[in-house]
Amino acid sequence: MSDYTPRPEDKFSFGLWTVGWQGVDVFGPASRPLLDPVEATYTLAELGAAAVSFHDDDLLPDESTRQETLDRFTKALAETGIRAEMVTTNLFGHPIFKEGALTANNREVRRYATRKVLRNIDLAAELGADTFVMWGGREGAEHGGGKNVRVALQRMADAVNLATQYVKDQEYSLRFAIEPKPNEPRGDILLPSIGHAIAFISELQHPEMVGLNPEVGHEEMAGLNFAHGIQQALWHGKLFHIDLNGQHGPRFDQDLRFGAGNLRGAFWAVDAMLGSGTDVAYDGYVHFDYKPPRAEAIDGVWESARGCMRNYLILREKVQAFRADPDVVAAMEAAEVDAIHEPTLAPGESLADLRAEEKDIEALGRRSVGHEALDQLAMEHLMGVR
Amino acid sequence: MSDYTPRPEDKFSFGLWTVGWQGVDVFGPASRPLLDPVEATYTLAELGAAAVSFHDDDLLPDESTRQETLDRFTKALAETGIRAEMVTTNLFGHPIFKEGALTANNREVRRYATRKVLRNIDLAAELGADTFVMWGGREGAEHGGGKNVRVALQRMADAVNLATQYVKDQEYSLRFAIEPKPNEPRGDILLPSIGHAIAFISELQHPEMVGLNPEVGHEEMAGLNFAHGIQQALWHGKLFHIDLNGQHGPRFDQDLRFGAGNLRGAFWAVDAMLGSGTDVAYDGYVHFDYKPPRAEAIDGVWESARGCMRNYLILREKVQAFRADPDVVAAMEAAEVDAIHEPTLAPGESLADLRAEEKDIEALGRRSVGHEALDQLAMEHLMGVR
Amino acid sequence: MSDYTPRPEDKFSFGLWTVGWQGVDVFGPASRPLLDPVEATYTLAELGAAAVSFHDDDLLPDESTRQETLDRFTKALAETGIRAEMVTTNLFGHPIFKEGALTANNREVRRYATRKVLRNIDLAAELGADTFVMWGGREGAEHGGGKNVRVALQRMADAVNLATQYVKDQEYSLRFAIEPKPNEPRGDILLPSIGHAIAFISELQHPEMVGLNPEVGHEEMAGLNFAHGIQQALWHGKLFHIDLNGQHGPRFDQDLRFGAGNLRGAFWAVDAMLGSGTDVAYDGYVHFDYKPPRAEAIDGVWESARGCMRNYLILREKVQAFRADPDVVAAMEAAEVDAIHEPTLAPGESLADLRAEEKDIEALGRRSVGHEALDQLAMEHLMGVR
Amino acid sequence: MSDYTPRPEDKFSFGLWTVGWQGVDVFGPASRPLLDPVEATYTLAELGAAAVSFHDDDLLPDESTRQETLDRFTKALAETGIRAEMVTTNLFGHPIFKEGALTANNREVRRYATRKVLRNIDLAAELGADTFVMWGGREGAEHGGGKNVRVALQRMADAVNLATQYVKDQEYSLRFAIEPKPNEPRGDILLPSIGHAIAFISELQHPEMVGLNPEVGHEEMAGLNFAHGIQQALWHGKLFHIDLNGQHGPRFDQDLRFGAGNLRGAFWAVDAMLGSGTDVAYDGYVHFDYKPPRAEAIDGVWESARGCMRNYLILREKVQAFRADPDVVAAMEAAEVDAIHEPTLAPGESLADLRAEEKDIEALGRRSVGHEALDQLAMEHLMGVR
Repeated sequence: MSDYTPRPEDKFSFGLWTVGWQGVDVFGPASRPLLDPVEATYTLAELGAAAVSFHDDDLLPDESTRQETLDRFTKALAETGIRAEMVTTNLFGHPIFKEGALTANNREVRRYATRKVLRNIDLAAELGADTFVMWGGREGAEHGGGKNVRVALQRMADAVNLATQYVKDQEYSLRFAIEPKPNEPRGDILLPSIGHAIAFISELQHPEMVGLNPEVGHEEMAGLNFAHGIQQALWHGKLFHIDLNGQHGPRFDQDLRFGAGNLRGAFWAVDAMLGSGTDVAYDGYVHFDYKPPRAEAIDGVWESARGCMRNYLILREKVQAFRADPDVVAAMEAAEVDAIHEPTLAPGESLADLRAEEKDIEALGRRSVGHEALDQLAMEHLMGVR
Repeated sequence: MSDYTPRPEDKFSFGLWTVGWQGVDVFGPASRPLLDPVEATYTLAELGAAAVSFHDDDLLPDESTRQETLDRFTKALAETGIRAEMVTTNLFGHPIFKEGALTANNREVRRYATRKVLRNIDLAAELGADTFVMWGGREGAEHGGGKNVRVALQRMADAVNLATQYVKDQEYSLRFAIEPKPNEPRGDILLPSIGHAIAFISELQHPEMVGLNPEVGHEEMAGLNFAHGIQQALWHGKLFHIDLNGQHGPRFDQDLRFGAGNLRGAFWAVDAMLGSGTDVAYDGYVHFDYKPPRAEAIDGVWESARGCMRNYLILREKVQAFRADPDVVAAMEAAEVDAIHEPTLAPGESLADLRAEEKDIEALGRRSVGHEALDQLAMEHLMGVR
Repeated sequence: MSDYTPRPEDKFSFGLWTVGWQGVDVFGPASRPLLDPVEATYTLAELGAAAVSFHDDDLLPDESTRQETLDRFTKALAETGIRAEMVTTNLFGHPIFKEGALTANNREVRRYATRKVLRNIDLAAELGADTFVMWGGREGAEHGGGKNVRVALQRMADAVNLATQYVKDQEYSLRFAIEPKPNEPRGDILLPSIGHAIAFISELQHPEMVGLNPEVGHEEMAGLNFAHGIQQALWHGKLFHIDLNGQHGPRFDQDLRFGAGNLRGAFWAVDAMLGSGTDVAYDGYVHFDYKPPRAEAIDGVWESARGCMRNYLILREKVQAFRADPDVVAAMEAAEVDAIHEPTLAPGESLADLRAEEKDIEALGRRSVGHEALDQLAMEHLMGVR
Repeated sequence: MSDYTPRPEDKFSFGLWTVGWQGVDVFGPASRPLLDPVEATYTLAELGAAAVSFHDDDLLPDESTRQETLDRFTKALAETGIRAEMVTTNLFGHPIFKEGALTANNREVRRYATRKVLRNIDLAAELGADTFVMWGGREGAEHGGGKNVRVALQRMADAVNLATQYVKDQEYSLRFAIEPKPNEPRGDILLPSIGHAIAFISELQHPEMVGLNPEVGHEEMAGLNFAHGIQQALWHGKLFHIDLNGQHGPRFDQDLRFGAGNLRGAFWAVDAMLGSGTDVAYDGYVHFDYKPPRAEAIDGVWESARGCMRNYLILREKVQAFRADPDVVAAMEAAEVDAIHEPTLAPGESLADLRAEEKDIEALGRRSVGHEALDQLAMEHLMGVR
């Protein structure tokens, strides 16, 4: 059993807004004092994070202290050796974005949102971030008549095209990552799932510069399988970044620490990130986007941050042990898991040959598939009894 | 008020398996006798359908009577003047497909599924169908370890590539339409939503030949907004076919008649199909894929089929009245709905100009958006009190 | 067609917190200015409300202005002729309640919550309210270990027992109404549904003084049928109060205006409230607990309040027309809806006689049930095409 | 680490319909051959089950072989030493029940259902079962107009009253257990949750004879917390029996083996069954009601049955270790979990004293609650890394 101490090579990253969430929700005000984001950076570094991420408004809410805060932040990065690996723009907090930002009906709002994105791209580049996340939390609608979805998607595409072109023109090395979410705070949000976002990217001018930042809870709010989702994203070459957290299925956005909620799903998410069974692994930052529950005081904030990393390390160890276990290898063989690697048609095989083939269909219908046996092994690895 | 009598130009189409469902479910056997699919074709024509669709196994379950049934079916089409507009392959009923068909781990199963598809493409072409639907109901998994999702997606892509190439080689005029579904009968199904399917298509060899056949209930089982979904499909040019029915959100696949379940959603679905607010309308068949509840006897079967068409006609009339109402036009103006047509940047406008602009952000945050007023008008049109 | 103008006898009531919601959510601050609750009372009266309700903190957030505000509020009630029909206590906003109020682990918190309830009971009695609602929004947990649910239920029962005894001792005429909710803002909330709350009441010392205040959206967040829920509450004699609003199934608490969301569900909810098919109708206030969407400015606030009442009046008219329609009466007859009134055993019939009976089971299995036909009539009444 | 071998004192029980499920679903026919229920009884005994349960139709589908099968079954019980601890009646399979059984609109159907129940009560008594489960799978509706829910609940109560009186008259020692479910196969089912069923029981003539048989998946299909549900049932003294299985939240009824689905929920369910933190434990049979996935052949059937028991034993061991861990005891102390045992008012304390008390509310709002720390310990016990 390892000691599960985070190391720089684990590439853990935290949004400054995660530990910084003060607990404001629809039913009550802040339950925790403001956490200075620069102080939070030092603490996250101590806890073992290799990087942080932020929205402009998290770090720099105030124009008058902007430069001073940036200087302090840059110093913190230098002193701790951690990076600002991802930057994103808050296009959902200020009331101006109440009806959308890049897809607001009001053109002035769209223009302001675009300015905010551009300014933040410059900041991201200045800080040496790799990834620029775009989450359109208010891009959506409660009702059917107020939003022309087809045209709104075009406005969104225009905005991303403009941003990618700007990055190319400036010779920045940023890549973009779209974060899908089905609903909350809007009744229905545009680009509600991993699939919708990948589809959207296929219509862009520089699709190679744009990928995804999928979040566990956002997919699970729609009852979708997160591991399947990121496997599809990896198949498309679009898993540019990731948001790990926890959720209990379709309900409000819980943003639990990673591992809490659907623990079996977390195991398979890590398995997918490690590229098990294929040669394609996720190699970006292991980024946590969660919220310490409002009930917790500051001790619970850091406890939950530690828990995110610790649970990832525990699960990673278990996934590796699962994949290496000879009994698992045998069960995978029995379940014909690797047979899927063999193409359905042989190279050069004609359709005529395929169509002439006759097999005992009834016998194939009776074959053993061995998934329960294999899954029981996985569960026992997860529970640490093998 | 119209008489809501279906006419050929309404292009209503029914799956033969819909009225033919005998009521077998997990908890009980058939509650209705077998309905001869050819007799069903005559009855659907009488009720006002312009077309039918079928799975191979619906119409032709038995090799020994295949030709005779086909002859009777062709005669029915000729006598009634309706078409077989869509054909699809049953890749989910027979136990051979219990662990998947085109993405089964077992290669023999994949080969058999491919043969079944090819044979059915020939039949679709012979009958003059426009659309070949692919629903992969058993392509998925209950657990994480048994299915390599990334490779399975490649096997699925191989199969669609093979099918599109075959259609090109044969010079058939068929187009393909993928039908997404999140779960049931498998724990999680591949290509779970409209978005995932459009993304998938972007990786194919002949993407222009492949679009979608989205189903109301399948999206709503994931809590997704169906109208938004088909608007995104239309934006991509991928709404090739449609499955109308009803559902009460995340739960088992209810397959209610169109209008039942989420009635407000049905209104906006019809609005999207009519291309409201844009110049792109859906022009294919209005296809119903539903199940008369198991409790109903045969009278309820036909009652529900009539209800599907009638509800569509009622909703279409209401949508048109809503869009034409001067009060609605004024409310749309107040809600700035059409302002989204104006691009965020003016043609030729520089980013420097955009970035130099200063606006009163607080005032924009306080603006009226008028969505509640507009939505109330829509609801009153739906309820027939305007 | 009526004019749908609210009248005092319609007994419409609004929570002051509904129109007063400023739009604060997890993702952004207020989008609307503070609305003076006394001014809101005047406006709601003008719009046609017969009554208002409030939490202590909505009306009287500040001790220093408490008496002055109460005086202004009492004057507003007198001048407008509307009542404060329901009062409730905010046991969820202040951080002290972050881990629960009447069921907090911390006993000082429970004691403070109890004091707050008692003080508010006095206020409710002073203002002549009929109903005292108890919603335990923070009574719950995110995880399994931190809350002893069995003992917490006993602490909740203790608190309700104490409150009912106090009301008896003071000879107040108040009744209590428990408001169930499955989750949000806590991961899981105690007494999550109508059923759980009625069960809880059966264990109280004065169960006759305690009923329910069910909310449309709270039941629908669990995928439960609201009309069925209130019918069960009526069967138990426990529908003391009601919260009407709108919701789109399992997701965050949307609090849409009544009618928005599940419109068909709203029709059947009104049908149940009117006691259709039985002799037991709901005769309390028709109370709206919703939130004008954050995107709306103040015009949208009042628009949505008007919409709540208007939609209720429209639906009430439709339900009455549906029940009076001779075609519906005939369809109900065909569906044997009223046959359920006849007990299964005849009065005095012996089990021996029942057990000796033989019937043609297969024929009964084939009978027509006529639900689709009946439901289509309901839908056409709802859409105003009959 | 134990060997997790089931022992008679573990009181494991299986429904004969679980391993006997042939895989028929809405989308396909049987994938497995018929399993003789008497043979299944022998096999379950070998695997370590202490008991079995059955519906009349599972064991005795055919009148002509009824006595012979009963004789064989009785012999199997005698030879293996296992019991038939629970019996239930199939009131959902035959088409006669398509619109309900004990609450069907049609009175002949209700009378037949009652006869079937009575006959089966005699059989249950003859076989020495303790518990008679009532699951009303078809008692419900797809639409609002066809079922008078209030009167239907009375018909259901009549039926249970009749059954309890019959058991008293016959001096049988049976208790009844109602099994709630929110939906599937009906659109909405009466008594949809644990709470609704307990409430219902409070209206019966012999409520002490009637309790619950809650099922993990049925509560989780409504997004409800199963452990909370059974804790409420235990608080009411109503946890008479239990159905363990697995589910992935709101979607179709998956009936996965115990542990699969929501594993963290399973941990807390076992914790609740063991009566942790209170003096009330569940002491009935640990009954599994699940379905081996349709994809599995007979080897997977037995594999999944073994997995159910093994997972329960593993989780039981983990729960016990968690509760005994001194670090957990300390974390529970920090989280004030046991403080809830102290009543909010001291014995004999006056309300006046309570109301005169003044505390530092702001300080209490800032207190640490320690739930994240405690939950992380639980998770690490579950994952076997402590």
